[in-house]
Amino acid sequence: MILGPGDDAAILEAPDGRVVVSTDLLIEGRHFRRDWSSGYDIGRKAAAQNLSDIVAMGADPTAIVVGLGLPGEASAEWLDALTDGFRDECALVGATVAGGDIARSDIVVIGVTALGDLGGRTPVTRSGARPGDVVAVAGRLGYAAAGLALLSAERGTTEVPDFAEEFVAAHRRPEPPYACGPEAAGLGATAMLDVSDGLLQDLGHVATASGVRIVLDPAALPVPEAMARLAAELDADPLTWVLTGGEDHALAATFPRDVSLPPSWRVVGQVSDAEGEAKAEVSGRAETSGGWDHFRE
Amino acid sequence: MILGPGDDAAILEAPDGRVVVSTDLLIEGRHFRRDWSSGYDIGRKAAAQNLSDIVAMGADPTAIVVGLGLPGEASAEWLDALTDGFRDECALVGATVAGGDIARSDIVVIGVTALGDLGGRTPVTRSGARPGDVVAVAGRLGYAAAGLALLSAERGTTEVPDFAEEFVAAHRRPEPPYACGPEAAGLGATAMLDVSDGLLQDLGHVATASGVRIVLDPAALPVPEAMARLAAELDADPLTWVLTGGEDHALAATFPRDVSLPPSWRVVGQVSDAEGEAKAEVSGRAETSGGWDHFRE
Repeated sequence: MILGPGDDAAILEAPDGRVVVSTDLLIEGRHFRRDWSSGYDIGRKAAAQNLSDIVAMGADPTAIVVGLGLPGEASAEWLDALTDGFRDECALVGATVAGGDIARSDIVVIGVTALGDLGGRTPVTRSGARPGDVVAVAGRLGYAAAGLALLSAERGTTEVPDFAEEFVAAHRRPEPPYACGPEAAGLGATAMLDVSDGLLQDLGHVATASGVRIVLDPAALPVPEAMARLAAELDADPLTWVLTGGEDHALAATFPRDVSLPPSWRVVGQVSDAEGEAKAEVSGRAETSGGWDHFRE
Repeated sequence: MILGPGDDAAILEAPDGRVVVSTDLLIEGRHFRRDWSSGYDIGRKAAAQNLSDIVAMGADPTAIVVGLGLPGEASAEWLDALTDGFRDECALVGATVAGGDIARSDIVVIGVTALGDLGGRTPVTRSGARPGDVVAVAGRLGYAAAGLALLSAERGTTEVPDFAEEFVAAHRRPEPPYACGPEAAGLGATAMLDVSDGLLQDLGHVATASGVRIVLDPAALPVPEAMARLAAELDADPLTWVLTGGEDHALAATFPRDVSLPPSWRVVGQVSDAEGEAKAEVSGRAETSGGWDHFRE
């Protein structure tokens, strides 16, 4: 950082000569609740969500800038915790909080913009997947969705059983696999994105942008035992969390079939010709009112 | 722009190897009202506010990214007008709308982040003013404040007299002197900022950051005739609008005394030793309950 907060604008190094930029707006009551997450966790999550978009291009995050809308009753301690969360999440990837703006608002509003540097790498977009590629995922799927389902089941935060704590923690504070983004770019990934709307929907974006069909292998998407147990307790379908949960900020990418993938990336499907309908689907399964069932033939 | 909207992040050229970045959050009811301004004007103003921060560093704006919070009742037409406003204001400086994010919200929230390129110039911060420098202003002062005062005088938008229309227009759509920022950097400005909190308060920031005293000459800050007439009608002090009104996004800068300033910059004061109290003041005047009066000695 060449010039930090306190002037009209911040100034950052952009050694690559290109700058990667992404922005998101988080609204209280829709993206977070102050009674379900601490200020610190909200700061961590808001930063993570945007830093993840930067690594999903294959870039290294350099900084975030933050626009905050704060109600009068938000305490200085809460604001400090929030900004500590921004700072600590940025520190995980060597980025800094370069600036911000605070306005009065009736509810908490957090606008985060993240910047990144490509370090000479070719950016990995959504449109480069080719028939014959493999589809791989880095990071967790369905954890945050499981945690949110538990918190939403009218039980609040007081009755989280021990075995389910990791899911609530995942909802409060995602752990994007930051290093895997630049790693994938270096490995020659043909397409990549941050899983923010759910694996199936986001791979649908890759399929549409690339003009291909993506077929996921459900056997490659195992449901962890604790997640299955929680789903049973909540009468929910755990595969729905895995396939449609977005807030873990996993990365999904396509790679040429001959690329030797490191253990951080696990193959979950294949890319084939669109055959007239570019989309992502799950092999042998369809979504029903009760979850993702085997086709009944 | 190397990669525009539609992916996880946008990618922009940063030929200077440094990138300038600034963010602001605008909240409905606090920064704008949908019954006082059109969607198009709100888009123009939100973009202008951030582009102005970029030129105030001496940089050329390259792009904005926008996070939008929108209520369900906001029409597609209103959203189109808003984004047209973003686009047209950016076009004034050769910048583009590189990306965005839309979330559901109970009120309209607009987070704008602007990026810029220094083109090899030394950035102009708030901290470089030196005793002996002159203080100069580019752009309008008090126009937007006068317009807001008229709209706020419980008359709504229906009874704006012809002579005051330029002030209401200035509130709705500021006209920052964009070209004057890079121009000032090229002329050797020692400090510069965007007047967003009012001339006196913002020059106070320069004084504090630079460790100097800034003295404004009230004779160099004439009140336009129409502004004086409106102030008389509203029983207001026009010099208060000029000295404390912020939304015109004028630029204020300090220059070495021997710099020959072009007509876009008008000298309004002097920089002197702080003498123990770094601040900005108006020569011979003090703020009273009724406005800015001559000292009574």
